[in-house]
Amino acid sequence: MKQKLTIVKVGGAVVEDETQLSLLLRDFSAISGHKVLIHGGGRRATQVAASLGIESKMVGGRRITDADMLSVVTMVYGGLVNKNLVARLQANGVNALGLTGADIDVIRSHKRPIKDGVDFGFVGDVDKADGQMLSKLIEAGITPVMAPLTHDGKGNILNTNADTIASETAKALAPFYDVTLIYSFEKKGVLSNPNDDDSVIPTITRADFERYKADGTISGGMLPKIENALSAIDAGVSRVIITLATAIDGESGTIIS
Amino acid sequence: MKQKLTIVKVGGAVVEDETQLSLLLRDFSAISGHKVLIHGGGRRATQVAASLGIESKMVGGRRITDADMLSVVTMVYGGLVNKNLVARLQANGVNALGLTGADIDVIRSHKRPIKDGVDFGFVGDVDKADGQMLSKLIEAGITPVMAPLTHDGKGNILNTNADTIASETAKALAPFYDVTLIYSFEKKGVLSNPNDDDSVIPTITRADFERYKADGTISGGMLPKIENALSAIDAGVSRVIITLATAIDGESGTIIS
Repeated sequence: MKQKLTIVKVGGAVVEDETQLSLLLRDFSAISGHKVLIHGGGRRATQVAASLGIESKMVGGRRITDADMLSVVTMVYGGLVNKNLVARLQANGVNALGLTGADIDVIRSHKRPIKDGVDFGFVGDVDKADGQMLSKLIEAGITPVMAPLTHDGKGNILNTNADTIASETAKALAPFYDVTLIYSFEKKGVLSNPNDDDSVIPTITRADFERYKADGTISGGMLPKIENALSAIDAGVSRVIITLATAIDGESGTIIS
Repeated sequence: MKQKLTIVKVGGAVVEDETQLSLLLRDFSAISGHKVLIHGGGRRATQVAASLGIESKMVGGRRITDADMLSVVTMVYGGLVNKNLVARLQANGVNALGLTGADIDVIRSHKRPIKDGVDFGFVGDVDKADGQMLSKLIEAGITPVMAPLTHDGKGNILNTNADTIASETAKALAPFYDVTLIYSFEKKGVLSNPNDDDSVIPTITRADFERYKADGTISGGMLPKIENALSAIDAGVSRVIITLATAIDGESGTIIS
């Protein structure tokens, strides 16, 4: 039987709220067994860019990454956010190792082609995450802390969506572990009524998802999140949980299976 | 007999000059056997800080690191400079892994106490570099790329001089390897006449150093560099070479032994 591995993805809003972040790091540190942390940092990147006089342009909720913005996200995701998380986890006794996709060639991607007239710039679509290398680190007692940056193998860093990093990492590790992937965010789970924070849908299958999508129960930014989750399940991930950042115990939230 | 390991320290001036950097990365990639790259990035940090409206304060050539400046160096050293070096080395076929001292607890330090009325702020004086952990990575075919940042084990990143990172790393790896430590910079080596770029002193022993220091041949910023080098030799490092960034072949420059 495979050993358990818990992958937690934490978004930018949580990373930037000291109270929520402390709780999350405490809970993450307390997870027994193998684990991986994947973080965002978009709001901080937007702040730093603004301070540098660089405007953040978004299309469909996704950041346009020109050369200046690539420098900003490389600084903020790979440096500021990642290294502070690593140092704080070390203080909690977790042997954290910060990684971008370029480090030990862990996640290779290619620059997203221009599509429907939209050029996202230096944004990477993932080709391959190296589960074998990651599992070697994990077996050595190391907890990878992954920033939403990848590389193209030609010397270029590329900005990559953190949810995608999470699902690709989970899929790559599924042959080696019994993987639980937890997407933590500001809500208790996937809500059936956006105005009622307690209307958490306990479980979603692919059939449920198609129905909820058709009747409009699930819409907007939650759609790609659940698509990601279902594709992870199809690729061998045992379960995906969407939950509050302060409830990453594996029991709360919406379970996608 | 121990295997050879080459540790190259490259300063900020080289990192920020595209022509020099390309040559350095080509030469570093061509070094056969085990290797480690250690980088600075101070000039870029000063630029980014200035763009953010943060003034760089120096005392005796060393940066005062207040909370805002700590964020800047964490971004620039740990993110921008480190991750771009890693991606470019990967493109050269070098399996690079970017590290700060916080990652896998590789270099632990403590905040420098206020001395002679000077508070350097969030600057770390190194307590311990983990040679065993580094050697495990190196044995796995990994090339560590180390940023001049350490951590205090209490959750704080600390700014740490890159020359110190280089000498501490070399000392920590000396029990495992026959270590050559190369400090690359803008000159061909330690010069006997600062106005003559070709007046390279071929070798310096401790006795030579004391003599050159006394008669003023060696002065200024070169003094701590050579002190660092000699302390590395005392701790078991086989040789330290101070040379031009485009001449890291182990043959050129000043050899300290």
